[in-house]
Amino acid sequence: MIADKMKGFVKNSSAIRAMFEEGKKMASVYGAENVYDFSLGNPNVAPPEKVKEAIEAILKEENPLEVHGYMNNSGYEGVRSQIAESLNERFGTAFGAENILMTVGAAGGLNVILKSILNPQDEVITFAPYFGEYRSYVENYDGILRSVPPHAPDFQPDLAAFEEMINGRTKAVIINTPNNPTGVIYSEETITRMADILNNKQKEFGTDIYLIADEPYRELAYDGLNVPYLTKYYDNTVVGYSYSKSLSLPGERIGYLVIPDEAADSEELRAAANVANRILGFVNAPSLFQKVVARCTSASTDIEYYDRNRKLLYSGLSEMGYECVKPEGAFYLFVKSPLEDEKAFCEAAKKYHILIVPGSSFACPGYVRIAYCVAYETIEKALPYFRKLAEEYINN
Amino acid sequence: MIADKMKGFVKNSSAIRAMFEEGKKMASVYGAENVYDFSLGNPNVAPPEKVKEAIEAILKEENPLEVHGYMNNSGYEGVRSQIAESLNERFGTAFGAENILMTVGAAGGLNVILKSILNPQDEVITFAPYFGEYRSYVENYDGILRSVPPHAPDFQPDLAAFEEMINGRTKAVIINTPNNPTGVIYSEETITRMADILNNKQKEFGTDIYLIADEPYRELAYDGLNVPYLTKYYDNTVVGYSYSKSLSLPGERIGYLVIPDEAADSEELRAAANVANRILGFVNAPSLFQKVVARCTSASTDIEYYDRNRKLLYSGLSEMGYECVKPEGAFYLFVKSPLEDEKAFCEAAKKYHILIVPGSSFACPGYVRIAYCVAYETIEKALPYFRKLAEEYINN
Repeated sequence: MIADKMKGFVKNSSAIRAMFEEGKKMASVYGAENVYDFSLGNPNVAPPEKVKEAIEAILKEENPLEVHGYMNNSGYEGVRSQIAESLNERFGTAFGAENILMTVGAAGGLNVILKSILNPQDEVITFAPYFGEYRSYVENYDGILRSVPPHAPDFQPDLAAFEEMINGRTKAVIINTPNNPTGVIYSEETITRMADILNNKQKEFGTDIYLIADEPYRELAYDGLNVPYLTKYYDNTVVGYSYSKSLSLPGERIGYLVIPDEAADSEELRAAANVANRILGFVNAPSLFQKVVARCTSASTDIEYYDRNRKLLYSGLSEMGYECVKPEGAFYLFVKSPLEDEKAFCEAAKKYHILIVPGSSFACPGYVRIAYCVAYETIEKALPYFRKLAEEYINN
Repeated sequence: MIADKMKGFVKNSSAIRAMFEEGKKMASVYGAENVYDFSLGNPNVAPPEKVKEAIEAILKEENPLEVHGYMNNSGYEGVRSQIAESLNERFGTAFGAENILMTVGAAGGLNVILKSILNPQDEVITFAPYFGEYRSYVENYDGILRSVPPHAPDFQPDLAAFEEMINGRTKAVIINTPNNPTGVIYSEETITRMADILNNKQKEFGTDIYLIADEPYRELAYDGLNVPYLTKYYDNTVVGYSYSKSLSLPGERIGYLVIPDEAADSEELRAAANVANRILGFVNAPSLFQKVVARCTSASTDIEYYDRNRKLLYSGLSEMGYECVKPEGAFYLFVKSPLEDEKAFCEAAKKYHILIVPGSSFACPGYVRIAYCVAYETIEKALPYFRKLAEEYINN
């Protein structure tokens, strides 16, 4: 009796989420301290103290009717102004409140923009490995997700294959840098070449192609690496942002879309996104947390924490013989599976209470994703078991 | 360049929302105290003190990683248990955590359940006048909304017309009691007759027809009136609830769905709703406010406040010659427009800075909706202007 379309979604339901549930079950059986759950991008760094202070200050200083009430479906004007100003200061952009639409996380934002632009059978291109939810989001609006094959071992985007994939039905491209699951950051040169390709293809087909930058990991860049701000390189860019990782607020569902003036049909697109936000049932981003993030534009998560984890895990696994690309950003390590069937390897890891996600969830079988947004001690304690797995499956 | 489907939505964008924006503009020009904005269901009663206390207690007592982190897409297990227990106590039901799915408000919940069940061209029936968003929600999933014509002047559901409208493609029925925009509450007798009709039609067509109860106004019933709990009358009931009105938290987007064991394919439906919540981009209901509402199951808004408004407005307008049904619940008065073209009457009201919504927004032209979730003083100050309008358009 459920919808036909949902049957497939339910059947292929997120392996990552299933793992998260399994982790909780294992924790209740073996004790949380004996389960090494690297499955979900659920930060183990508490939100900055500023978040709590902001909540308390808002409750004390502001009118509760305003704090918890309806506002424009795009969000509080003041909040949107503050976010625009913060972006302008950091990236030399020139956004105003009207370019910002507050969303229920980045997932909400991506759904809003895709509903706003996709006609049935429109194509959206992304680069494997990619966050598996992109497929669901695109199919929600009867679009077709096409993915550029993964470019192992460096996982930089294969721009030649990308160029070939673009056609007259290509409505959008989703990129995610710093990348989940590889940790790769696209360089300025890569972005410039991508923009050239898109501009040429727009001319060739007489179409507009939106570049959707999914940026929940923007602030998580290591070694002082620069993450280029996309709107400066390509006019038809829409940025989807989330505070889930940067302020460790994944459960609060707070983020925003940036729709610049330079985007094609910008005004109509912003009107459509405002309506899509409403009719998809979001109505507006949660009100208190809109005000919280506006007060926290200068706060940030403890990147050193993740960096320590990154170094420990990367050097530890590399030394054991695992092959992986050193992450430049985000908090994932994408490791070549010692077994060709990486699902079998994930199963094998479970016997040591290690939970990791098969690469096939990211359209990249043969690899596994290890989310290192965990306690340092979890990595320390798990490494001997990774060594056992290496002894069983690599050095044999 | 926006999606074709969105063009219509943008064009017919919510008149209620447009009015809300206009009200804010008028307030900035004439001063908020000189604008009588009856357009939006945005409560003017502050949330119960318990809400603030709950937020403060949670921040103090609970682990911030848990408070702001991911949980099962259906919501925190503990929160869902507490809500189930609270419902069981109040209504004699037997729900468990597994029957509750926390949602981004009732609007999020309705989208989740409609995505879960609708195939393209499936029909959903509702009763005019109805909340205009139902049409958007159904069309999001390519369903067809059919509406039973309004039954003036008492606005009780026309069950004969309803019975005739059901066919083999009818997948769901949406009802909203206490009703927006009429304030009508469906009696136990009405519910029982409706359930009989649905059961007979299910048998006749060999189908399952879900009754979706949209219940943001459940707690807003006056004169001690009983609002029957629908799951007890019809097995295939799904309840959509929101704390927007009962705790004055419309901006926070917090509510839940109830999917009882008795519903057809209940387990599959719950799995589908869990996935729909995730892939539509809600991911989960905002985490802090899940915990807040669980601590506020016994709190309620100040119904006396609305009741005072109801009495003042209803008796005031009736006395002036306006025709309206006395609301039994919610916080709306649905008034016959003195002008046949009710949009013209709404325009006329604007000259006195009165903002009210045309009935055509609820598929019921010839009427206007006055939302009385405002300050008592707003009604007091607006009544003389309603009198002027009566003199101009009724008693002339």
